[in-house]
Amino acid sequence: MSATPPPSRAACAALDEADPLFGKRDLFSLPAGMIYLDGNSLGALPRAAAQRLAAATAGEWGEGLISSWNTAGWIDLPARVGARIAPLIGAAADEVIAADSTSVNLFKLAAAGARLNSPRRVIVTEPGNFPTDLYILQGLKAWLGEGVALRVVPREGLMAAIDADVALLVLTHVHYKSGALHDMAALTERAHAAGALTLWDLSHSAGALPVDLNAAGADLAVGCGYKFLNGGPGAPAFLFVARRWQGALETPLSGWMGHAAPFDFVDDYRPAGDIRRLLTGTPPVLALSALEAALGAFDGVSMDALRAKSMALGDLFLDLVEARLPHAGFTIACPRQGAERGSQVSLRHPHGYAIIQALIERGVVGDFRSPDILRFGLSRLYGGYAEIWESVDRLVPGMDGFLWQETRFSVGAAVT
Amino acid sequence: MSATPPPSRAACAALDEADPLFGKRDLFSLPAGMIYLDGNSLGALPRAAAQRLAAATAGEWGEGLISSWNTAGWIDLPARVGARIAPLIGAAADEVIAADSTSVNLFKLAAAGARLNSPRRVIVTEPGNFPTDLYILQGLKAWLGEGVALRVVPREGLMAAIDADVALLVLTHVHYKSGALHDMAALTERAHAAGALTLWDLSHSAGALPVDLNAAGADLAVGCGYKFLNGGPGAPAFLFVARRWQGALETPLSGWMGHAAPFDFVDDYRPAGDIRRLLTGTPPVLALSALEAALGAFDGVSMDALRAKSMALGDLFLDLVEARLPHAGFTIACPRQGAERGSQVSLRHPHGYAIIQALIERGVVGDFRSPDILRFGLSRLYGGYAEIWESVDRLVPGMDGFLWQETRFSVGAAVT
Repeated sequence: MSATPPPSRAACAALDEADPLFGKRDLFSLPAGMIYLDGNSLGALPRAAAQRLAAATAGEWGEGLISSWNTAGWIDLPARVGARIAPLIGAAADEVIAADSTSVNLFKLAAAGARLNSPRRVIVTEPGNFPTDLYILQGLKAWLGEGVALRVVPREGLMAAIDADVALLVLTHVHYKSGALHDMAALTERAHAAGALTLWDLSHSAGALPVDLNAAGADLAVGCGYKFLNGGPGAPAFLFVARRWQGALETPLSGWMGHAAPFDFVDDYRPAGDIRRLLTGTPPVLALSALEAALGAFDGVSMDALRAKSMALGDLFLDLVEARLPHAGFTIACPRQGAERGSQVSLRHPHGYAIIQALIERGVVGDFRSPDILRFGLSRLYGGYAEIWESVDRLVPGMDGFLWQETRFSVGAAVT
Repeated sequence: MSATPPPSRAACAALDEADPLFGKRDLFSLPAGMIYLDGNSLGALPRAAAQRLAAATAGEWGEGLISSWNTAGWIDLPARVGARIAPLIGAAADEVIAADSTSVNLFKLAAAGARLNSPRRVIVTEPGNFPTDLYILQGLKAWLGEGVALRVVPREGLMAAIDADVALLVLTHVHYKSGALHDMAALTERAHAAGALTLWDLSHSAGALPVDLNAAGADLAVGCGYKFLNGGPGAPAFLFVARRWQGALETPLSGWMGHAAPFDFVDDYRPAGDIRRLLTGTPPVLALSALEAALGAFDGVSMDALRAKSMALGDLFLDLVEARLPHAGFTIACPRQGAERGSQVSLRHPHGYAIIQALIERGVVGDFRSPDILRFGLSRLYGGYAEIWESVDRLVPGMDGFLWQETRFSVGAAVT
């Protein structure tokens, strides 16, 4: 419980007034009256992305047709979009490309990273990691046979589990359910001390908080384009390869776009000398164009300022829940200290699904993750303090005494 | 050389007037004055695709946000788009999904098909296949070690090369350069007689000519969404798995969208029971929406009628070149018989690159493939007979006697 009472609605509105980031909200097209706290699942629509998609469709595709591969720079989109993501994650411009899905990129880099560090064969990860990370590693193990073994270790045991057999440490930087943040620098240092490489999944951290891959000495990373980067539903993902590994990394998905000279149309594969060797098929031009435009919302934004605001908003949310709903059965399911969590807060409640549905009906969009987690994303390019106050205010009715008088809480027919 | 003189411009215009498919042109947004013969590389923009993209962006993404996964059916897009492609390729609706790129789908199905037919380990393909097909198979060989061997055999030797060691035959149905068409039924029959499975790349046949995978008994197939299907630059690709193999096929790219219950978020991978097990990451919603709308152009189109027109147009093009440019140094680089080629014609000329550049300047867009191939796609949902006449008419000036007086043919500064 917070020592001081949380601010009033008016005090929160005043914080928004004073917030230099609050104006960024105008870059987004948000539904009237909705408080959207689910940018950790799908980022809101940047107006520039809609405009760019329309222009890329009518002009570049419709009028330019195949000439746009050169005249509109389509062929460079994976590298160009990667270069725009790079400063958000502490990478150099030539260390990031946008391509494929997070899952496909995980496969490419986990396979390549494990091979690069052979004859070591152990990949370390944690249980409860985002499912696709675990599934892709399980697939690798099944397919590479003796090449890969999995060691799945709870996070408190990770440091001790990184030994001389470990080829690769594969972790998600910010946990998708709890929002808990790994210490990337410390884990990478430990991995390197043991001779292991690291592959970080930045799906819930890129664009949400400052990430500094190169300061941490990270080797490989992947991340999602449609959460805090606001690239649109199913947007292309990205991948990072530290410059020192680019010449040695071999992808199993050796498609034509990763060839040193794809338009020579020769029969034998020869990988590009740089990070483009991690490309596979033809780039998804329209989706990359939307993502590129969406990234413009970060122009001029200090990630440190964004982080400070995100932590303050998370603290505010938790303070308000503790102060106003002390007996409603909520448990805080994320780190209480802002510095230890990503840009989301999570609560636990035995009736979590019903509660999130009711809250959505009241115009506050968070989401639910099985079995009992309520997630609220704090994508701080849109929204602010007053929204958080309002969100908790809308959570209150019917909740006080919920555990003792469940019938007071109407959840509608959608609840299963 | 054709026995009868080719028709006049007026006769070609009359053919267009009488053509029931000619009205389909109005479904597309084409640049004024351009004759576009490159739909085999990038299909033209269907007006419905532009409208759908705008609606999916502003409405489904901008307003619906995460609820659109259910309310707009985003989660079903891969299967829904697959079901629309299915009738174009002779598949059942539940045998096709749209996902990833052609290259990634090739990897998934070649790996899975080879494993399904183990302990056989030989994959047969042909030299000069589309590069990404060869590169992906080379990658598989390098990664699966003893699991895969490649046998690369010129097409005249393919039948004899399919023996009892062969796990999988991987061929592109219509050759990207020559347009030459494989006999899918005969090769599949031969493969099955030898106990091998087949994986067909339909990139240059889906939407271009009638394909009947199930009549041929085909096992697996992939194809491209952005050529004759007009789904937009870098559109999602598709894959086919015959129903009889769906329960047994294992993908190495075991991502969360292929899980039997992806939203249970459990730690262990369990593949979906149907073709959805070949999905990997989050579906590219906007791109799939454009592709779905683009496929509407095929509504009510008889693929047999489209095929008949495409062969007639190809014959017309070749007849005109032979009649009007007998001494210009062109060689026909595609099958002369329409039934033996896909929906394109190809010419060979030592100055092919220069000629195609000059022709583009004259408003006729074909393309060039190294070292000396001029390709002209005949995507017959847009365009017609008069355009073919006009294209050859614009090819003529300066070409007659080209080999003897090269300076008469101005090719501009773009030539390298």
